[in-house]
Amino acid sequence: MPQAVAGPEIERLIQLLGRMPGLGPRSARRAALQLIKKRETLLAPLAEAMRVAAERIVVCRSCGNVDTRDPCTICADHSRDPTMLVVVEDVSDLWALERSGAVKARYHVLGGVLSALDGVRPEHLNIARLVERAAEPGVGEIILALNATVDGQTTAHYVTESLKPLGLTITRLAHGVPVGGELDYLDEGTLTAAIRSRTAF
Amino acid sequence: MPQAVAGPEIERLIQLLGRMPGLGPRSARRAALQLIKKRETLLAPLAEAMRVAAERIVVCRSCGNVDTRDPCTICADHSRDPTMLVVVEDVSDLWALERSGAVKARYHVLGGVLSALDGVRPEHLNIARLVERAAEPGVGEIILALNATVDGQTTAHYVTESLKPLGLTITRLAHGVPVGGELDYLDEGTLTAAIRSRTAF
Repeated sequence: MPQAVAGPEIERLIQLLGRMPGLGPRSARRAALQLIKKRETLLAPLAEAMRVAAERIVVCRSCGNVDTRDPCTICADHSRDPTMLVVVEDVSDLWALERSGAVKARYHVLGGVLSALDGVRPEHLNIARLVERAAEPGVGEIILALNATVDGQTTAHYVTESLKPLGLTITRLAHGVPVGGELDYLDEGTLTAAIRSRTAF
Repeated sequence: MPQAVAGPEIERLIQLLGRMPGLGPRSARRAALQLIKKRETLLAPLAEAMRVAAERIVVCRSCGNVDTRDPCTICADHSRDPTMLVVVEDVSDLWALERSGAVKARYHVLGGVLSALDGVRPEHLNIARLVERAAEPGVGEIILALNATVDGQTTAHYVTESLKPLGLTITRLAHGVPVGGELDYLDEGTLTAAIRSRTAF
């Protein structure tokens, strides 16, 4: 236990900052000091933004997204393609896809992936609700936008099995060379996938 | 300007988090999501700790430390050696020395170092107040605990000149091999200093 070098209020701030992802004990101290120095422009507004977030953010009961409304802004957006559901592991993946603007559809956040190692079983994921939503009239395609990891692909297979009785089109993201990627730095699996799925030029 | 992918409350949280030291736009999003997931255990307490800090923390008018009281806990601590003042660049250096427990004295935070490049001149630093404090009866030694950088050493020389009329003992931190340090990884300046200041074994 290191000696407390500042008052209890500052020590508590440092301790809580140190539990944020990406900040350790040392960087938490540096962050606390920077925040205190920028009290008016950063510390007070951030405290308020966090309070508002803590009070008002809810998990969408339909898709698992986080928002200040339930159903979330995306589920409530009637301009989105109602025939597709994009299945993602986590809200961060939903955000990444929204930033790309690649698809104007609704999402379904599983809340993780199956993992024998971490003891994550199907009942821990938001799969039952996905099957319900997929069975709603009008849904024709399920896009599995899961990470190209072993656990992600295992989950994709499990979800596919769960949805099979509905007779929907189930697709997954293409594998290939990332845009801007250099072949020299890519693994063999990606290169093999890119060759196999080559397209006409 | 990337597309807003979440509600305005979440976007604002991400934007403010991204201005924290050590967090960029991408890690701010990850941090925001982690905070939202740990709403009860981290987000709400952190918001409250930040609010308290923003409201109650003041800069000690005597030494420049940050605390919820003025004079700060260290200046008000009568068990500390009243004959010494430890001069540091920043509050983070004060904290580092306090953690080490190396000295039980009071501090003086300059609030930076002289820098021709950054346009930091003596009047921008807390030097006038240092001269006042050093002139108080009972003070016998000023320890310059400034960083061993060019600007730090320039500042040390300037402070020494400013304090010279008072006829106090002025000392600086020893240069040498860091405890646990390997010679192979040290620069020539440090090794030369360590050889010059060698001590009997």
